[in-house]
Amino acid sequence: MASLLNFPLLLRFLGTICLLIGASMSFSFPFAFPMMAERTHLPPATAFEQRATYGLLASMAVCFSVGFLFRFLGRSHRQGSHLFRKEAMAIVGLSWVCATILGALPYYFSGTQTAAGMPITFIESMFESQSGFSTTGATVLTDLDTPGLVPHCILFWRSWTHFLGGLGIVVLFVAILGQGSAGKAMMRAEMPGPTKDGSMPRMQHTALVFAAIYLGLNILLTIIYFFEGMSAFDALCHAFGTMATGGFSTYNRSLGGFDSPLIESTTIGFMVLAGTNFTLLYLSLIGRPRRMLRDAEFRAYIGIIAIVTAGVVFFGMRAHDEGFSTLTSAFRNGLFQVVSVMTTTGYGTADFDHWNNFGRGILLLLMFVGGCAGSTGGGLKVIRIVLFCKILRLEMERAHRPRVIRPLRISGQAVDDPTLAHNILLYFCLVLAIFVVSWLALVTFEPNSTWGVVESSVANQSEQGKELLKGTLDDKLVDCASAVAATLNNIGPGLGVVGATRNYAGFSQGAKLLFVWLMVLGRVEIFSVLLLFVPSFWRRA
Amino acid sequence: MASLLNFPLLLRFLGTICLLIGASMSFSFPFAFPMMAERTHLPPATAFEQRATYGLLASMAVCFSVGFLFRFLGRSHRQGSHLFRKEAMAIVGLSWVCATILGALPYYFSGTQTAAGMPITFIESMFESQSGFSTTGATVLTDLDTPGLVPHCILFWRSWTHFLGGLGIVVLFVAILGQGSAGKAMMRAEMPGPTKDGSMPRMQHTALVFAAIYLGLNILLTIIYFFEGMSAFDALCHAFGTMATGGFSTYNRSLGGFDSPLIESTTIGFMVLAGTNFTLLYLSLIGRPRRMLRDAEFRAYIGIIAIVTAGVVFFGMRAHDEGFSTLTSAFRNGLFQVVSVMTTTGYGTADFDHWNNFGRGILLLLMFVGGCAGSTGGGLKVIRIVLFCKILRLEMERAHRPRVIRPLRISGQAVDDPTLAHNILLYFCLVLAIFVVSWLALVTFEPNSTWGVVESSVANQSEQGKELLKGTLDDKLVDCASAVAATLNNIGPGLGVVGATRNYAGFSQGAKLLFVWLMVLGRVEIFSVLLLFVPSFWRRA
Ligand SMILES: [K+]
Ligand SMILES: [K+]
Repeated sequence: MASLLNFPLLLRFLGTICLLIGASMSFSFPFAFPMMAERTHLPPATAFEQRATYGLLASMAVCFSVGFLFRFLGRSHRQGSHLFRKEAMAIVGLSWVCATILGALPYYFSGTQTAAGMPITFIESMFESQSGFSTTGATVLTDLDTPGLVPHCILFWRSWTHFLGGLGIVVLFVAILGQGSAGKAMMRAEMPGPTKDGSMPRMQHTALVFAAIYLGLNILLTIIYFFEGMSAFDALCHAFGTMATGGFSTYNRSLGGFDSPLIESTTIGFMVLAGTNFTLLYLSLIGRPRRMLRDAEFRAYIGIIAIVTAGVVFFGMRAHDEGFSTLTSAFRNGLFQVVSVMTTTGYGTADFDHWNNFGRGILLLLMFVGGCAGSTGGGLKVIRIVLFCKILRLEMERAHRPRVIRPLRISGQAVDDPTLAHNILLYFCLVLAIFVVSWLALVTFEPNSTWGVVESSVANQSEQGKELLKGTLDDKLVDCASAVAATLNNIGPGLGVVGATRNYAGFSQGAKLLFVWLMVLGRVEIFSVLLLFVPSFWRRA
Repeated sequence: MASLLNFPLLLRFLGTICLLIGASMSFSFPFAFPMMAERTHLPPATAFEQRATYGLLASMAVCFSVGFLFRFLGRSHRQGSHLFRKEAMAIVGLSWVCATILGALPYYFSGTQTAAGMPITFIESMFESQSGFSTTGATVLTDLDTPGLVPHCILFWRSWTHFLGGLGIVVLFVAILGQGSAGKAMMRAEMPGPTKDGSMPRMQHTALVFAAIYLGLNILLTIIYFFEGMSAFDALCHAFGTMATGGFSTYNRSLGGFDSPLIESTTIGFMVLAGTNFTLLYLSLIGRPRRMLRDAEFRAYIGIIAIVTAGVVFFGMRAHDEGFSTLTSAFRNGLFQVVSVMTTTGYGTADFDHWNNFGRGILLLLMFVGGCAGSTGGGLKVIRIVLFCKILRLEMERAHRPRVIRPLRISGQAVDDPTLAHNILLYFCLVLAIFVVSWLALVTFEPNSTWGVVESSVANQSEQGKELLKGTLDDKLVDCASAVAATLNNIGPGLGVVGATRNYAGFSQGAKLLFVWLMVLGRVEIFSVLLLFVPSFWRRA
């Protein structure tokens, strides 16, 4: 299939994506009216948000212009042309590029401020847009509570991108239009995880089931949040944040601001659901709950949550961490944070950066685990961890019994794909390589001022002053590692300068671009994005 | 070959190893006489080291007893029995266990003290013994400079284990005795790196070449050090430390104590040689130096050293690090430390823990690179890094051109082993898994008192006191990571509590056992050691 890309077809697809993004912005308009954007804790807005509305209109105009331009440029219809694997990968990758840039426009045009007197830059808008679509939930908006800094219709757009991102731009395509083998390739590119390919009707069915369950759970959770005391606006936004495993909140203190055990336990339950394979949820709904309990990935998922929570509670209480004084509060804080990180939601009720080092370390590792395949959760996915452990065990046996060949088994069934083991190992190595390179780049190029150390003054410091500065900067290695892990796995908050009570606003513009890149890599099948940067991908073979 | 292990044969081999270890201890005796152990900087010893001599004799007695016992137990001669792959792996693994335990005896029996008034424990003796044999050079002996704490004959034994470990217990076997296919398996188990198997005479030739070059370079370096101003005793010990990429010194300030640019540059040169594939050195000696310059691994090895040194010098000068005030001193400090870590020698002249975070980060990563295959250097080996990058690049191409199959090439030649890519990826994943698990275990179980924080007082601290304690403990994550990396890759010093000016004495006894384990894993082909802990390895299939 080593031929030139079918550019007209590509452009038409991308044009449609741009039109859809533009159309989806219209959902934000109602929330420019004060009556639609009532808040649980804050006084209601006093007036119609005029400037933000104009910003939204301008953004939509750009989306539609670009969309129609792409469709116009791609009008030369080659007869019988249909999408091949290569085009499908390009579409998925480029769709995310379009979504990032177009999704940034509302923030930029609406006069949103990251803090009082600090208008958002375009790179920051892209960061926020990508963080929304990729369901990462990392933010540069320092102050959501002061009225007027972030208009309500923009606050809704921010959470709405979570909803759209959780659904997946392409799932929509496949579910509604069906796209033959290309649809399959697109699904594979956007919903990673080593799953068996089915026939196309089956794929379309999967996409529809996914969309239906996703929509249903969002509606259900909105209603529950509403009856638990949230305003309609807050309930909607937080439901999007939870079900997409996104983590954007509408308050500075995130979900912790409600200080309600009821809301917290509801959130824990729905985060667990959001991290579960939606096909299993569907099978349970149609009366086959046993499939869920027999599923190796689901069992590992629940098992990891249980074991890590037990560890966090035990070591947290032993170290007298904040919020771990009684068993009840330790369990409440521990379980919430473990589920939040494991499912890659990243809501904060407690700042785990202030926990003991076991807690900090295990949550840092847990960031890489992620949810189940076929869920909205990010990370490596539980199934890959399970397979990874199985592969290492099999290899141990193979080392002393080279002639005994035992197949890889999952949920009791032998895996018949001979390349699976290779692909799993490759995926781990690829993530490792991306992590290491990004970490080193961040450590190297991020100025020390992000950690509050003014570069030029170092040379003139006394010995004692230098020691103090060094102490502050010692955290840089861990903070950068956690920031890379939290964006690459679509978690959101990390440790230190990106801890639960802080955000990404302090990073340099270059670092923000790196994070945008890592968030796309984390959300979309890595290859689909990396390939866009391989020259030979675009050339005729 | 899934049959019961040939235990009698195994025991006879191990018995021979024990006898050899015992015999090798006799080389330490001369240095109990003051005239043999003259020091460059310190006053000479005043008397014959009687207690240490008795300790050495007792250690030898134990070695010989165990050796003869093993040979007696293994006397039941099955006709025509010879060594299979499985036995070979068991022998290599168990040889290292024997070496660790028997090599610890001289420290323990000689009344060595880790600091004034602190007699060495048996676990600490095992740590020091394993650190020597595995050429790690991590130490628990806090004070080498105060006379009487560590007897000179024990100091020699410590460096002598570097010499033996660098040579490899098994290389000796193969070179001298030749062991047919088992010799091959043993070589493969002890000298890792993806090399082509040759015929047995060829293997024996390789082993002999390795031993000859190793011995020659050790003698040469001893002479050079002597003429550069070291006493004979110090020259011998430091030559062992350099050529084995070990890193044990005979002074508290390590090689930095000589403060001689001449000695430092000599050491840099010989560290680079020690990290080079000895076969290439041999080919250069017999008049084929071109092979060396064309070798992909050697070029990558030199390239990495050059690029990283340039980076370290640049960022070190920009951050006004200690010792980086002029270009000359920056280059001297930077190059020494980069070569020292890259070749896994671990000599310290500058404490890179006090460098800027680029320097700290890059050296932490460099720990995993290591020397070339077929050298005495540890780590992953440069060839694996080269192949890893090539594999990732090939896979990127395969992702969009699944039908174009291009072979993996190294030094211009296609690799004909279809399992190589799988094995490289597997190796990286295995090292990753061992690193992550060990790191988490260390973070979890190492008491905070190692970082100077008294556990019981935490609960009673004021808020400000708690903040201060937290600041100190924040380093725990990085310090533990560096300690695991430094032992697993046989470097020696790491960051923070195991920085170049500090040592492993502060760690708990359990952590010291973990480090012993990691040092063996790093030195021997990982599988040979791990397999000893797989029950099915010992069972009849
Ligand atoms: K998230
Ligand atoms: K070393």
